[in-house]
Amino acid sequence: MTGIGIDIGGTKVAAGIVDHDGAILAHGRAPIVKDSHETILESVCVVVDDLLVQAVERPSAIGIAVPGTVDRDQGIAISAVNVGWKNLPLVALLQDRYGLPGVIANDANAGAWGEYAFGSCKGMENLVYVTVGTGIGGGIIEAGRVVRGRGAAGEIGHILVNPGGPLCNCGVNGCLESLAAGPGIARRGRTAAANEPSEIVRRLTGGDLDSLTSFTVHDAAEAGDQMMQGVRDDTARWLAIGCQICQQLFAPECIVFAGGVMQDGGRLIQGIRAWFQRLAGSEHPDIESFIRLAGESEHAGILGAAALVLRPEQ
Amino acid sequence: MTGIGIDIGGTKVAAGIVDHDGAILAHGRAPIVKDSHETILESVCVVVDDLLVQAVERPSAIGIAVPGTVDRDQGIAISAVNVGWKNLPLVALLQDRYGLPGVIANDANAGAWGEYAFGSCKGMENLVYVTVGTGIGGGIIEAGRVVRGRGAAGEIGHILVNPGGPLCNCGVNGCLESLAAGPGIARRGRTAAANEPSEIVRRLTGGDLDSLTSFTVHDAAEAGDQMMQGVRDDTARWLAIGCQICQQLFAPECIVFAGGVMQDGGRLIQGIRAWFQRLAGSEHPDIESFIRLAGESEHAGILGAAALVLRPEQ
Repeated sequence: MTGIGIDIGGTKVAAGIVDHDGAILAHGRAPIVKDSHETILESVCVVVDDLLVQAVERPSAIGIAVPGTVDRDQGIAISAVNVGWKNLPLVALLQDRYGLPGVIANDANAGAWGEYAFGSCKGMENLVYVTVGTGIGGGIIEAGRVVRGRGAAGEIGHILVNPGGPLCNCGVNGCLESLAAGPGIARRGRTAAANEPSEIVRRLTGGDLDSLTSFTVHDAAEAGDQMMQGVRDDTARWLAIGCQICQQLFAPECIVFAGGVMQDGGRLIQGIRAWFQRLAGSEHPDIESFIRLAGESEHAGILGAAALVLRPEQ
Repeated sequence: MTGIGIDIGGTKVAAGIVDHDGAILAHGRAPIVKDSHETILESVCVVVDDLLVQAVERPSAIGIAVPGTVDRDQGIAISAVNVGWKNLPLVALLQDRYGLPGVIANDANAGAWGEYAFGSCKGMENLVYVTVGTGIGGGIIEAGRVVRGRGAAGEIGHILVNPGGPLCNCGVNGCLESLAAGPGIARRGRTAAANEPSEIVRRLTGGDLDSLTSFTVHDAAEAGDQMMQGVRDDTARWLAIGCQICQQLFAPECIVFAGGVMQDGGRLIQGIRAWFQRLAGSEHPDIESFIRLAGESEHAGILGAAALVLRPEQ
């Protein structure tokens, strides 16, 4: 049995054919041109058409991961701001075209499900998945099921951790995302450097502080800039607070981090572990396992989407 | 069909026979004398024996709510500090004595289940239950199931909301319980009044600040003490932060508060609602319903325990 996984991002669509054990048999991608629903959907179909030509056996279903809110039961992308979708009946549209049943999920929920089905957390019935990039997404598996509540549960990025902190798009001042996602890290970095940027920061930004990103913070910290090491340490602390909260509320077997900001040679995850131990007030017996990085598969998005149909929820 | 609900508290055991619609057919209580497992268990049996004498039909099962952690599958009270229990096979002991099957749960989880089965949240599949008293307990229902994770999920009282805040028994500095449970409110009240207690506080405490409790804070606030009104408002703010976090993580249909601290004529719940609106960054369309008080049944504990067996989890 094989399935198609479609991972829709802000700038590209990636898709693949995945077998029952999580092996990728074929994959492809296409850039997204955001002028209408139709052209984005056309990009998706171009990739899937190409995959089906390569397929040795016909896939049995399509899983779709979308950066936004979905109605899983109705198969609708309710709101995906980055791609401009609103109430798009994606599952029905793909079923019409390919004659295959489909399942749609929020991308962080699909990512969590992929970790559960195929990833480093395989075999665990309770896990918290956090992706840290331009935003912070979350997906929670409890007793082998995705926690959805009324629909948009698992929004770890938007829990309030610093009342009165920076304003997020979500309307909250001081949610986790406003502090610890890429733009939040950059903002704290710029604020820290505003008065007297170090030589290192000046060099890395070419003297233009506005160009400072979360990657600049990392590079400067690695180059020995103590101020930027402090900014990075604060990122770890905010994320560790999120871990403590999730530990108390979900009692997971592990908390697994993914996303671009986490790809820093292990600095941030180490910082999160250290802060977690300090804040939680007791040593976790196996912190390296409890707070971990997702495998660095470049196809994690495809795997998560395919897992939706290859390991259907009970 | 009827069931027995046994609610074990720190100072007393209450039990009742409850019918399928949540009506209490008979009830009783006994004080707890904490000298050994056996005497406490004897108190439980005295109450249950008496109920069974009164019973018109034989109850079909026993639900037990315990103030501590339990192993539901094994029917064991793992740790109940207030009554001194450790790894007590309570379900087996009661089965031996009465020949009835049993289900055990943490008291906050049982409280949540009682609200779900019989209370103000009947018919809702997703709810967060928070009890604020000497401690802060939490129980979460998601998709009609109790969220347990590895066992002790739903610990709303011990989420970190103020890093570096007061030290809690749980080992964390600044968890919600350390700030917003009765002793935490009293501590903040004493701190606020330490330098210059108002006339009102001096009168209410007889000049002995050490005797100031959370109820003193309430009474002083009601009598117009602005400092204690500020302490009460901070309590509402901390609890509203907890609500915002639970809203993002569980997307519940409602958040329902119970417990002694909440029985203040509605002041605190109103404050929580107001702070929630401010902190959440958007008006909730139906805040009065979303953040609510549990019904003031004096038998809520019995109902929650009985609900464990009258509405078994799917």
